[in-house]
Order: sequence, then C-alpha cells, then structure tokens
Amino acid sequence: MLTKEQISEAFMLLQDRICAALENEDGKSKFKEDIWKREEGGGGRTRIIQDGNVIEKGGVLYSAVHGKVPDFLLNNLLDNKPKTPNSELQTPNFYATGVSIVIHPGNPMVPIIHMNVRYFEMSNGVWWFGGGIDLTPHYVVEEDAQFFHSALKQSCDKHNPNYYKEYKKWADDYFFIKHRNETRGVGGIFFDKLTQTDSVTKEQLFDFVLEVGNTFAPTYTKLMNKNKSKTFDENNKQWQMLRRGRYVEFNLIYDLGTKFGLESNGRVESILMSLPKTAGWEYNYSPKTNSPEAKTLSYLKKGISWQ
Amino acid sequence: MLTKEQISEAFMLLQDRICAALENEDGKSKFKEDIWKREEGGGGRTRIIQDGNVIEKGGVLYSAVHGKVPDFLLNNLLDNKPKTPNSELQTPNFYATGVSIVIHPGNPMVPIIHMNVRYFEMSNGVWWFGGGIDLTPHYVVEEDAQFFHSALKQSCDKHNPNYYKEYKKWADDYFFIKHRNETRGVGGIFFDKLTQTDSVTKEQLFDFVLEVGNTFAPTYTKLMNKNKSKTFDENNKQWQMLRRGRYVEFNLIYDLGTKFGLESNGRVESILMSLPKTAGWEYNYSPKTNSPEAKTLSYLKKGISWQ
Repeated sequence: MLTKEQISEAFMLLQDRICAALENEDGKSKFKEDIWKREEGGGGRTRIIQDGNVIEKGGVLYSAVHGKVPDFLLNNLLDNKPKTPNSELQTPNFYATGVSIVIHPGNPMVPIIHMNVRYFEMSNGVWWFGGGIDLTPHYVVEEDAQFFHSALKQSCDKHNPNYYKEYKKWADDYFFIKHRNETRGVGGIFFDKLTQTDSVTKEQLFDFVLEVGNTFAPTYTKLMNKNKSKTFDENNKQWQMLRRGRYVEFNLIYDLGTKFGLESNGRVESILMSLPKTAGWEYNYSPKTNSPEAKTLSYLKKGISWQ
Repeated sequence: MLTKEQISEAFMLLQDRICAALENEDGKSKFKEDIWKREEGGGGRTRIIQDGNVIEKGGVLYSAVHGKVPDFLLNNLLDNKPKTPNSELQTPNFYATGVSIVIHPGNPMVPIIHMNVRYFEMSNGVWWFGGGIDLTPHYVVEEDAQFFHSALKQSCDKHNPNYYKEYKKWADDYFFIKHRNETRGVGGIFFDKLTQTDSVTKEQLFDFVLEVGNTFAPTYTKLMNKNKSKTFDENNKQWQMLRRGRYVEFNLIYDLGTKFGLESNGRVESILMSLPKTAGWEYNYSPKTNSPEAKTLSYLKKGISWQ
C-alpha cells in the first residue's frame, strides 16, 4: 500500500525535475531554496527564481505538513454540520503534501502558468488527491492554447477517457473571477478529493497525479521557448500589468490554496509567492475594439473547446 | 425625525465639498463622474481622479442602494442563526447610503488615505451608522501621524469624550493585516452599527458621522500640501510598490466594504477603485536595519498612542 512518505518523496523528486527544466530553459537565473519548518508539524522547501531571462518571478514549492486538523477545515470537511461533542472526528490528525508552482514571465508574450498536485489524509482513514494546471496568457494565442490543452488531454487519456473532459470543465468553473465574469486564462484541468472507488486504486490515482506533474515542464518550457524572443512595447507591458492585477484578484479572493494556507497559519512568503513582482489597476479600462487585448478578453470564457 | 433621504442628501453634499477640496489642493486633475444604477434598486455617483500633481489615482464615491436584503447579509445580520421560516425577518428591504474615499498619491512621501461614512436601515426598523478614517503612510512621519490623530480626537471629543479612545482601538483591530501581523498604516478611527440609545439620538449620531466626514478634507489636504514637494528616489518608489501590495492584500482579503460590494452584486469598478494604479510583491523582502523602511515597519503595530 502506497504510504504518505512515498507520495512526499515522489513530490520532492518532481520539484527537483521541474526546477532543473525551468532553469535550463530560462538560461540565466537559478532557484534559491528556503527550507522551513511549521511550528505545528512538518515544513517545506520553497524555491524561488527571480529576474531571469524569461522568468521575472516564480516559485516551485514542495511541502509536507501535519498536525491536528485546523478548526476551519474540520467544519468544512464535515459540510458545515455542527460538531458532535465526543466524536472521534472532532480532532483527527492530518497530513498534507504537495507541489505548487506559479511562474510570472517578464515578456508579456509568454503566458503565466500555475500547477499544483497534492495529497491529503486524515487519521480517520479518509484521504484524497487533488491538483490542476492552468495557463494564463496575457495575450491568448489560439495555437498555444490548443497545444496546452492537447498535452493535458493526452496525459489524462492515458488514465481514463473521461478525465480530461471532466477536469477541464472543473478548471473552467474553478479558475473563474466571478466579480469580473472572466475566466483567469484559457483554463486547463482541475480536480479535487479523488479517492479510491471500485474502479480505481490509490496507486492508479497517484500515477495520474504524477503524470499531471510530469506534464508541466515539457509543456511550459515549450511555450517559454516559442514566445520568449517575441518583441513587445509599452502598451503590451501596460496590458500585462492589468492582467496581473486580475491574477492578484483571483489569488487573494478565490484561490482555495491561498485561503487554506493563510487560515492554517502557513508560511506567508511561500503562500504569496504566487503574486507577481508588479501588477496594476486602471479605473474602467476597456480595450479598443478589434485590438489584440479585446481578442484576448473574448477568450476569457467558460466552455471553449481548445482541442 | 431624520429620514434616509436627508442623510443621502447630506452625503451627496459631503462628496461635493471633498471633491472640490481635493481638486483645489491637487492643482491639476479634475474628478470624472460616472453615474450608475443598480439593477435591484438605487445607484451612485462614482468620481475618479487620475494622474494629478499629487494624486495618482483616487476615488470619492457616493451611493444609495436599496432592495431586498441579500441572503449572505441576512444570515450575517441574524448572527448566523438558522433562518426561521415565515419570519418577517427573512426578506426585509434595506437602504444603504454612504461616501467612500481612497486616495493613492504618486509621491511616496504623501500618505494613502481612506475614509468612509455610511448609513444602513432595514424595513423592520433596524438602522445604524458606520464609518472611519485611516491613514497609510508609505513612510511613517511621527509628526504627521500625531497631527492626523489629534484632528480625529478633536472631532470625536465634540460629540463624546469616549469616542476617540474607543474608535481608535476599533481601527487598530479592523485595519489589521492578520497574515502579515501588521497594521495597514497608523490607523485612525473606525465604528460600526451605531444606533440610538437612552443617551444618544439618531440626529446626534448623524452629526458625529458628518463631523467625521468633514474632518477628512482639511486634514488630508494639509498632509498633501506638507509633503507633496518632498524629493524621492527609485528606492522610495520600490518601497511604495510593496506598501501598495499590502494595501491590495488588505482590501481583497479583509475589507468588509469590498466583500459586501462584491457579494451584493455591486458595481465592480466602483468597489475596486480602492486599488492602486500599480503595486508590487517581492519574495521575503526585509528592509535594512535602521533604514526609514525598517522604522516605518516598526510603527505598524496596534496600540500606539499618537497624541
């Protein structure tokens, strides 16, 4: 039976591979590592890369934390039902491990990307996997979005013919900035609370999750490589600032990982590494008709079929 | 008896006076007005000023909205008690009116400021006033913080000798970025759900609220005037970006007005006018020992006595 230690170990190696691939493609900056410990149990390896040829600010984080399940999460897990006194469920221990990535490139023609794979278990025997990848181009390029979704579909299809369709829709719903009525980017896949059933084992689910993790580096470095030498002007940088502003809005208002991290007394600098070096807001901005910016906005919708 | 229409009317005039005073002190830019209507009832006058001599981006907003109390708010008002079917309280009408201000200056030596005064009533007869002012200097200047707090204390003292002490503490607790363990700035005053008692009438409370509103312009324009010609360098601008990043964190994670606005389907561009034109985040940034930046951080604590 697959143990939490084995999962953590595999996630650490995944972090290593991804960092090596990103450094290689960036060609200039190297990741700097901070090892940290969580007071209540566990810790992590936060790796940050800055001011590279391609990557302006990015992080590839591994963590494995444990302890008593925090109250806010317990209530959530129990579906907001009132706690039953003397119930075993009141204070189970938990173990959570995962890899999280956000990369903000300097060149607005290179997309922002996010990836997360995670495993959670409780001492009462409940466990699940979760994760996802999504792409946030400052300028949507159809060909790139198609390439990205095809890569995800291929990885999903190796495991279950329904995964891509189901998790692509989940991503559309999750990576959504409700108050703007905009998706964060061109989506990707998202899944949560995957646990064994009659038709899938823990090992099979973990194989799938690792496959998602392994899809990240070849897919994103290809997009870096393809776009990193494109020229851009002041107008493109301005637009990048506004798109980054939207990214900040999503991460601080809706992102469940950020919420979980801040509410469970996580390491703030690791949680908020997802925020860009700079971002901007302009009152009532609206792009010119038929501009590349307007075209990009027209693609920030749920339900677009990208492959 | 003071009516909601009289309160709204006074708030509109307050908006007019404040805009005139800010334009006068800025000396270059003028406010642009957007009149908007809320589908469910009411609307507002959003006034935005940009790229001035002193003010880089700011808004002075008036609104008066009404309709059925939104569900999320109703639950909140009932203290999270389960709704009683057939209760009168289930869907009362509400009326909310107020003036909200956030000013982001270009020069990092000029502080950011926020002010809000508001009135809320429901068709079941419940009503209250709320409001506050708080100052967020990029660089804390003791003399300015003292001047600001003295002005607030003077205004409070005219109405009740306990107000300043009580509402200053409330501001320390409210304008607090929990995950950073930092106050947003040097505080000010904050109060909510003020309603009549044996010792205070609705008219007296409204006089106090208007006094708070009227304290804004002379106090802030004095701070603009005193600091607007100070020189600054690239390092100061960088620090301003980081402080603005914290301001964004507060507004998107903790600010109840933002939360109320977004959840009640408010006008997004008006609600998020509080965000600066630009903001920044740097991983694990820590100012040099004994630098002005470190001194500023040392002041971002609750419980400092400023007068």
